[in-house]
Amino acid sequence: MKNDMKFAVLGGGSWATAIVKMLTENTDVVQWYMRNTDAIEHIRTQGHNPNYLSSVEFRTEQLMLTDDINVAISNADVLIFAIPSAFLDSELKELTTDIKDKIVFSAIKGIVPETNLIVGEHFNINYNIPFENIGVITGPCHAEEVALERLSYLTIACADTEKAQLVAKHLSSDYIKTKISDDIIGTEYAAMLKNIYAIAAGIAHGLGYGDNFQSVLMSNAIREMKRYIKRVHKMKRNINNSAYLGDLLVTGYSVFSRNRMFGNMIGKGYTVKSAMMEMKMVAEGYYATKSAHLIISKHKKQSKTPILTAVYEVLYEHKNPKIVFKELTDKLD
Amino acid sequence: MKNDMKFAVLGGGSWATAIVKMLTENTDVVQWYMRNTDAIEHIRTQGHNPNYLSSVEFRTEQLMLTDDINVAISNADVLIFAIPSAFLDSELKELTTDIKDKIVFSAIKGIVPETNLIVGEHFNINYNIPFENIGVITGPCHAEEVALERLSYLTIACADTEKAQLVAKHLSSDYIKTKISDDIIGTEYAAMLKNIYAIAAGIAHGLGYGDNFQSVLMSNAIREMKRYIKRVHKMKRNINNSAYLGDLLVTGYSVFSRNRMFGNMIGKGYTVKSAMMEMKMVAEGYYATKSAHLIISKHKKQSKTPILTAVYEVLYEHKNPKIVFKELTDKLD
Repeated sequence: MKNDMKFAVLGGGSWATAIVKMLTENTDVVQWYMRNTDAIEHIRTQGHNPNYLSSVEFRTEQLMLTDDINVAISNADVLIFAIPSAFLDSELKELTTDIKDKIVFSAIKGIVPETNLIVGEHFNINYNIPFENIGVITGPCHAEEVALERLSYLTIACADTEKAQLVAKHLSSDYIKTKISDDIIGTEYAAMLKNIYAIAAGIAHGLGYGDNFQSVLMSNAIREMKRYIKRVHKMKRNINNSAYLGDLLVTGYSVFSRNRMFGNMIGKGYTVKSAMMEMKMVAEGYYATKSAHLIISKHKKQSKTPILTAVYEVLYEHKNPKIVFKELTDKLD
Repeated sequence: MKNDMKFAVLGGGSWATAIVKMLTENTDVVQWYMRNTDAIEHIRTQGHNPNYLSSVEFRTEQLMLTDDINVAISNADVLIFAIPSAFLDSELKELTTDIKDKIVFSAIKGIVPETNLIVGEHFNINYNIPFENIGVITGPCHAEEVALERLSYLTIACADTEKAQLVAKHLSSDYIKTKISDDIIGTEYAAMLKNIYAIAAGIAHGLGYGDNFQSVLMSNAIREMKRYIKRVHKMKRNINNSAYLGDLLVTGYSVFSRNRMFGNMIGKGYTVKSAMMEMKMVAEGYYATKSAHLIISKHKKQSKTPILTAVYEVLYEHKNPKIVFKELTDKLD
């Protein structure tokens, strides 16, 4: 690997903005692609993203902003994707640049709905990128706290340890500690599943369940996550590490989580459709629920996933959340 | 065992009050001992405890209230102790009744400071009660939510399954689900350790660490708890069950937890002494920290317990919490 790798961040949301901030602590220039040309102009002239983490001030000479994904990619060796999973496929369709020799890291917490693949698999299968060039950046990490420079821990997963270390080094700073992992499949599934459990926590809260139940729900959710991930990709992992349990907790206990808010509205009586219309940002867990349910259904020997099933029934079979969650309480312990 | 067992609850605090409420759903009469004679008089005449969970209305004909611990005990087969661990030894010194043939359940989350024993061991060693007659009632359960009849899950642990089931049956109701366990040592240690980790969460919050760090702290705490309990009592247990992880979360994430509040004050700059004086109720974790530290120090092959050690250094060695926690952040991942 070259000593001086160039980084591109793809995406204009809060997590993309946080990652650009982390990179600018360690690199001279970051390629930054986003669709929104008004935002690009604002960042260029004012030094901050007007729509997300607007308190973060950038030194504009460090940013190579572009609304052309091919420009950003062709100028970089390491690509960090932070586009909502629902839009990834259509964004990638715009590629004219070959990315098969790039190092591709996903900071996306979800599944590509068109292919029902986690992002790493999507790049491997559809873009011929070998797994040793694919990685995952995962929390527990609210982007808002990165903006405030509050101490946060990231897990950087890649089958190739050297590449994980390279990316980790470029994200680390006074307020970011990083840990390396080789479990790219497991960390991606965990990041996806936790959004579903956050929806469950929101539904429960909306229905009037309290803190005692929330803790039982989270205790069951981590056990369910362990079974689920073991079924789709068996390897030695400690499910209580930050990338799995920590990530579940930071989302499941956050009143700001879009997924939890989305669930909360449904628990309060909104229909799925009206809750989605009220939300300005995509609740990743909505799509993840469908895909996660489909994926586990395909496994001959299915795992018990009562929480996922309950959320699926509420979101996609339009069952009454009150009744579904009443039944769920008998399956938890 | 007799079919019609009589229950006594020893203690007048919020958890004792919640347990009496649960029992009155299933038994005709509950023996209820507390020291506070004014409170007894108030409950007798008004039907509610004036000091704790005062919204809970009792049918007074179901309560046999007394300020004489020997009266309550001699009228009962099953004793449920819900006295703060710091006062247990002095209360037990008042016993003139023999309790060695009673079934003794502990709803105390702590260690007896005089003996550095968890409550079950204290009864076994000092009162000759065989382990098959000793049990533990554990959460995750805020008493306040029992008062509101919000769904809560209890774990009832006893080496003798039949006795665990007996007590479980008497506590179960529409809003209380119970689970049986044979890990009385592990559940007691978990209930004790979680208060220490709640103090750590409070200190971190007081020092300005955010939600990202809190989730990393909890993720490390459950791993530390697993190592600690394995060291003192090795057996097959799933540390992510509600009695361990759930109990940690309900306390560690509660802004109402006395232990977390106590830690928060210290993180904000109060001295240990002044924080204790501000608190009206005992923060069990304060005493637990000393005992837990002592117990693990005695083990030849110690476990790594960086969080416990950090809390110990702040509370008992009067080290600067800001520096201690800065060092702690390097030991977590």
